[in-house]
Amino acid sequence: MKDIKGYIRDAAREAKTAARSLAKISTTVKDRALIRMAETLEKRADEIILENKKDLEQGKGSGLNSAMLERLSLDKKKIGEMVKGLREVSALPDPVGEITKTWKRPNGMVVSKMRAPIGLIGIIYESRPNVTADAAALCIKSGNGVILRGGSEAINSNIIIARLLSGACEQEGIPGRAITLIDTIDREAVLELLRQEDYVDLVIPRGGEGLIRMVVENAKVPVIKHYKGVCHTYVDIDADLDKAENICFNAKVQRPATCNAMETLLVHQGVAKRFLPRMIKRLREAGCEVRGCKKTVAITPDIKEAHEEDWGREYLDLILNIKVVSDMDEAMSHISGYGSEHSDSIITESYTKAHRFLREVDSSAVFVNASTRLNDGYEFGLGAEIGISTTRIHARGPMGLEELTTTKFIIMGDGQIRE
Amino acid sequence: MKDIKGYIRDAAREAKTAARSLAKISTTVKDRALIRMAETLEKRADEIILENKKDLEQGKGSGLNSAMLERLSLDKKKIGEMVKGLREVSALPDPVGEITKTWKRPNGMVVSKMRAPIGLIGIIYESRPNVTADAAALCIKSGNGVILRGGSEAINSNIIIARLLSGACEQEGIPGRAITLIDTIDREAVLELLRQEDYVDLVIPRGGEGLIRMVVENAKVPVIKHYKGVCHTYVDIDADLDKAENICFNAKVQRPATCNAMETLLVHQGVAKRFLPRMIKRLREAGCEVRGCKKTVAITPDIKEAHEEDWGREYLDLILNIKVVSDMDEAMSHISGYGSEHSDSIITESYTKAHRFLREVDSSAVFVNASTRLNDGYEFGLGAEIGISTTRIHARGPMGLEELTTTKFIIMGDGQIRE
Repeated sequence: MKDIKGYIRDAAREAKTAARSLAKISTTVKDRALIRMAETLEKRADEIILENKKDLEQGKGSGLNSAMLERLSLDKKKIGEMVKGLREVSALPDPVGEITKTWKRPNGMVVSKMRAPIGLIGIIYESRPNVTADAAALCIKSGNGVILRGGSEAINSNIIIARLLSGACEQEGIPGRAITLIDTIDREAVLELLRQEDYVDLVIPRGGEGLIRMVVENAKVPVIKHYKGVCHTYVDIDADLDKAENICFNAKVQRPATCNAMETLLVHQGVAKRFLPRMIKRLREAGCEVRGCKKTVAITPDIKEAHEEDWGREYLDLILNIKVVSDMDEAMSHISGYGSEHSDSIITESYTKAHRFLREVDSSAVFVNASTRLNDGYEFGLGAEIGISTTRIHARGPMGLEELTTTKFIIMGDGQIRE
Repeated sequence: MKDIKGYIRDAAREAKTAARSLAKISTTVKDRALIRMAETLEKRADEIILENKKDLEQGKGSGLNSAMLERLSLDKKKIGEMVKGLREVSALPDPVGEITKTWKRPNGMVVSKMRAPIGLIGIIYESRPNVTADAAALCIKSGNGVILRGGSEAINSNIIIARLLSGACEQEGIPGRAITLIDTIDREAVLELLRQEDYVDLVIPRGGEGLIRMVVENAKVPVIKHYKGVCHTYVDIDADLDKAENICFNAKVQRPATCNAMETLLVHQGVAKRFLPRMIKRLREAGCEVRGCKKTVAITPDIKEAHEEDWGREYLDLILNIKVVSDMDEAMSHISGYGSEHSDSIITESYTKAHRFLREVDSSAVFVNASTRLNDGYEFGLGAEIGISTTRIHARGPMGLEELTTTKFIIMGDGQIRE
């Protein structure tokens, strides 16, 4: 692969041409292709596992740790989840062609907004090979071509999965290039892909903060992303403390490695003495380390003190910051100062404070009396999601099929002209 | 102004801080500020005209042509239009806080999408000083801060307008920095502004293709734009030729210098002989030059032949390409090959062809039996617009107040956790 520039440019151009055909294909054909994709992965699981073994061996050789190897590995169960995902996406409603609004103008013309595919979407991701199938499914269903660039450590797994999916598309009359995998591990290929503004309409990076910053830094095409989730729960003086305990425990402990897990608990000083001892006890019993502000340490002296740099950290682990605040204003200003506009929750029985928190906290999802862990496409009822956006344009929060479309105005007239 | 980097960074940071306050300000206060802005420009029109004279004199000295001087000049009438614009925006509904959708999940939580301001919006524009007031009005109403960088030739006009608007905001309790003008003509300032990804959430360039390409090339922040409008009208074999003639004449002649004016007319071969002679006669009587394909020239031999490079050109002038096509497929493939995804229209009485054209033509606005000149925020009923987007994410077509907002999910729970 000597000429990376030419390779990427050709791949993007051909994928875009395929995407243009796909944009006009009916829902029935797209759904048949998704089912065929599912059946193909199911039938040929052994081949996928064989190719995945090559990646795992190379990964062991190059010293990947066990968490990384776990993310990389595919077995029948994980392939079964990919298959299930493809089937679920085929059952979701097709957003393309949906009229979201229609109105009539005084001159008699009828103006509507209609959903249309975005075009060609680039997905740049790290070690999980299941992203190959999950992202392809959502893009095909929403009428978009997809150009995929996975982590080099998963290259053999990604190549076989993409080849099978692309072949299944062709069998149903969708151009195979609508699913294009960049099958070189050359790092230059990513940079080149990010410069294809003539062909790639949107790039969605999925992975750690380092990958995402690299993409934003180098992209000439639009990017939708989130860097990290520094999520807060604020337990108000008017909170029901039983609800608060359950919600906070869930937000921190249920799956700490996710972007919507709580990293900092803010507690009103009026309930701190009653609430913190029981909350901290329960968290520590679950193996959670607690780092508190001075006031928190004064209440429960056997915990670590939090440092200034801790407040902005995304631990993705069983570690929690706790801060006692004097009122909701201090809580909201802490959230806007240290948060990442991802997911933040208030626990309160006060109507007025709930109302104000919802309006004034500026995050992709703002909760009253619920766990931040619920910021998720399935939980919100959007179906499968391609990621959570904290970008402030196009889509914010979980991105499902609708967020993979654009709109156009369609105007039905009977001779209207501009006066 | 030695340290441009520091100057722009400080200006963007302070404007962002002001934008954060503005986001929470009530509609009543924003509307009062807009009225105060209108009154201030009205009262102090003489001062604006005085500053504008400085720009005009410098412009004459540096050899601006008469069209450029005309765009640059401000008189009582033009200031009156800015004043009227400010009043109109104050009367439009405030999009901020609007709930666009609400639904209930099986676990009882109620999920809604609520509009919120985007944050800080950068506007980069050329010689027209009225953009300073028009853009500021839309941004303030939608709760966004605005950082403006106008053309160097209008610097004195822009400085006084921005100062008056900003002062009017302060009198009503909105931080003046919410309207920030970059008051240096150093070109480096634009490049620096395009790199303020920590503070600027979106940049909208307004001007010629050169300016817009420069912005896209250098921006680290998201950009919404359109390069140019290469708009088509396709006169089908089933067209009502009287409607066709009126609509085409309007699309080309009513205001040829606009981005939604028609640049190429496509005519079905089955009606070309009947339609073209009368159409061309009427266009030429209006002073329009016609460049035709070989078949067009065969029908009306006294016109110029169009060259390959003409088909993709945005003339912005009384010049029109004409091509005879064998069917609608050829017309649509011409549009997708040479068009700019801006505004395209079909003239037909055929239900089936109208239906297919609306679905398959991939432009920001697609018309049946109406003039492409109608692609406009006022004409569509959106109120004032900040521009027309052919970007495929966030907003496509005329961008009004709604398009200057983002959404957030708000979730009302009573103890929900992730299972």
